[in-house]
Amino acid sequence: MMALPQDDKAAIPKRPISNIVFIIAMQTEASPLVDKFQLTQESNSVFPTGVPWVRYSGKYKDLNINIVSPGKDTVLGVDSVGTVSSSLLTYASIQALQPDIVINAGTAGGFKAKGACIGDVYLASDVAFHDRRIPIPVFDLYGVGTRQACSTPNLAKELNLKIGKLSTGDSLDMCPHDETAIIANDATVKDMEGAAVAYVADLLKTPAIFLKAVTDIIDGDKPTTEEFLQNLAAVTAALDQAVTRVVDFISGKNLSEL
Amino acid sequence: MMALPQDDKAAIPKRPISNIVFIIAMQTEASPLVDKFQLTQESNSVFPTGVPWVRYSGKYKDLNINIVSPGKDTVLGVDSVGTVSSSLLTYASIQALQPDIVINAGTAGGFKAKGACIGDVYLASDVAFHDRRIPIPVFDLYGVGTRQACSTPNLAKELNLKIGKLSTGDSLDMCPHDETAIIANDATVKDMEGAAVAYVADLLKTPAIFLKAVTDIIDGDKPTTEEFLQNLAAVTAALDQAVTRVVDFISGKNLSEL
Repeated sequence: MMALPQDDKAAIPKRPISNIVFIIAMQTEASPLVDKFQLTQESNSVFPTGVPWVRYSGKYKDLNINIVSPGKDTVLGVDSVGTVSSSLLTYASIQALQPDIVINAGTAGGFKAKGACIGDVYLASDVAFHDRRIPIPVFDLYGVGTRQACSTPNLAKELNLKIGKLSTGDSLDMCPHDETAIIANDATVKDMEGAAVAYVADLLKTPAIFLKAVTDIIDGDKPTTEEFLQNLAAVTAALDQAVTRVVDFISGKNLSEL
Repeated sequence: MMALPQDDKAAIPKRPISNIVFIIAMQTEASPLVDKFQLTQESNSVFPTGVPWVRYSGKYKDLNINIVSPGKDTVLGVDSVGTVSSSLLTYASIQALQPDIVINAGTAGGFKAKGACIGDVYLASDVAFHDRRIPIPVFDLYGVGTRQACSTPNLAKELNLKIGKLSTGDSLDMCPHDETAIIANDATVKDMEGAAVAYVADLLKTPAIFLKAVTDIIDGDKPTTEEFLQNLAAVTAALDQAVTRVVDFISGKNLSEL
């Protein structure tokens, strides 16, 4: 649903992309990119008073780059991960910053049965939820909420990125019901934000792509939490590198050239 | 966390509540109240172009009443239930309408083991999520996201409403992992929006209360979906009546008198 129909795509002005918003859930994931693109934290927030959301921005080549994060929970002090925070942040950021494209970048779990390895960076072809079971006709489809990412065949080919489907849920672990839904979603990677970002971007008619770096193998023999925390820093470096290549590729191109 | 600390409560201006926003997920739940309060649908939306969100507003006694609904999914045509839609709608409505209080009203499942019967209307004392399992210290608490509803002891007593804890998740059914979390949340009622509305209201420092009418008994012998659809219209009438009594009670009072 998010891939632009041909008619719409033809109507896109053939001007280069100038404004990118990255939605990144965790500080550990955002920091290396903030440094890499030499962004500075905006003190004059475009967000309401009291929200912990953080925006870094700056110019890189011909692009305005914003990295937004949901920030630390105001009471508990941990990163505000998950679908509620990321949907709010995506909404507020699109409204305030009117990006040409949204890029949701972050870490994910991967399934080795579908070819994923630690450190792989996936470009998601499709995103869907795996923890919104509503067993009433049509509501069931709404719950799963499958959406295609913005079509970027040239980017995928040029950068030789792995392509896979992404499944989103608000739990770090995977209960049997989640697993069944993830298999039904034909997912290679599993995260906690993607499908929510896709929903909001679709609602506000903004193209979105999804870059997910694999921190843990879900169908492997190590516990997810342990593997996730162990690999977070190293895999974030791989993500950092992939994001830089994506931004370099986007620079000077219009949407239909991606 | 949402109950105002004594210091803050003392600082509340002693002026009567004048502006109420109801967050109601389903059209079937909203329609009788729209009629009851003789509200009219706003064509000049305070919401962005393209979103399906609907706002009804009008004057009832001395109160400005807004009923907002996430509306029908633009592709699938079903009510946009669940935490992502309701959090976005709560955010946008508080930003645009600056209500004195948010009331999330709707139907819910109830546990007979905790005293719930079909048609009961509960005022939630606390809300929490039951499908956001993040087994990392502190992140686990963030996932559950327990919040107290705005304290309204006089309203509860005067209207003789049943009081119980509310647990929220994005599935209509209940898998074993959800059940464990719902028990840990000590919940009497289960819905698909409350804790998300509470999160956003808390973020934007807006008092919120939760009125939930029981359409199905989760620990009973009938399938949830069937019972929910069967009782939806009748129970909505009970909700309608309770909401009217709550609004009549609020009229002329300030927050600290509730």
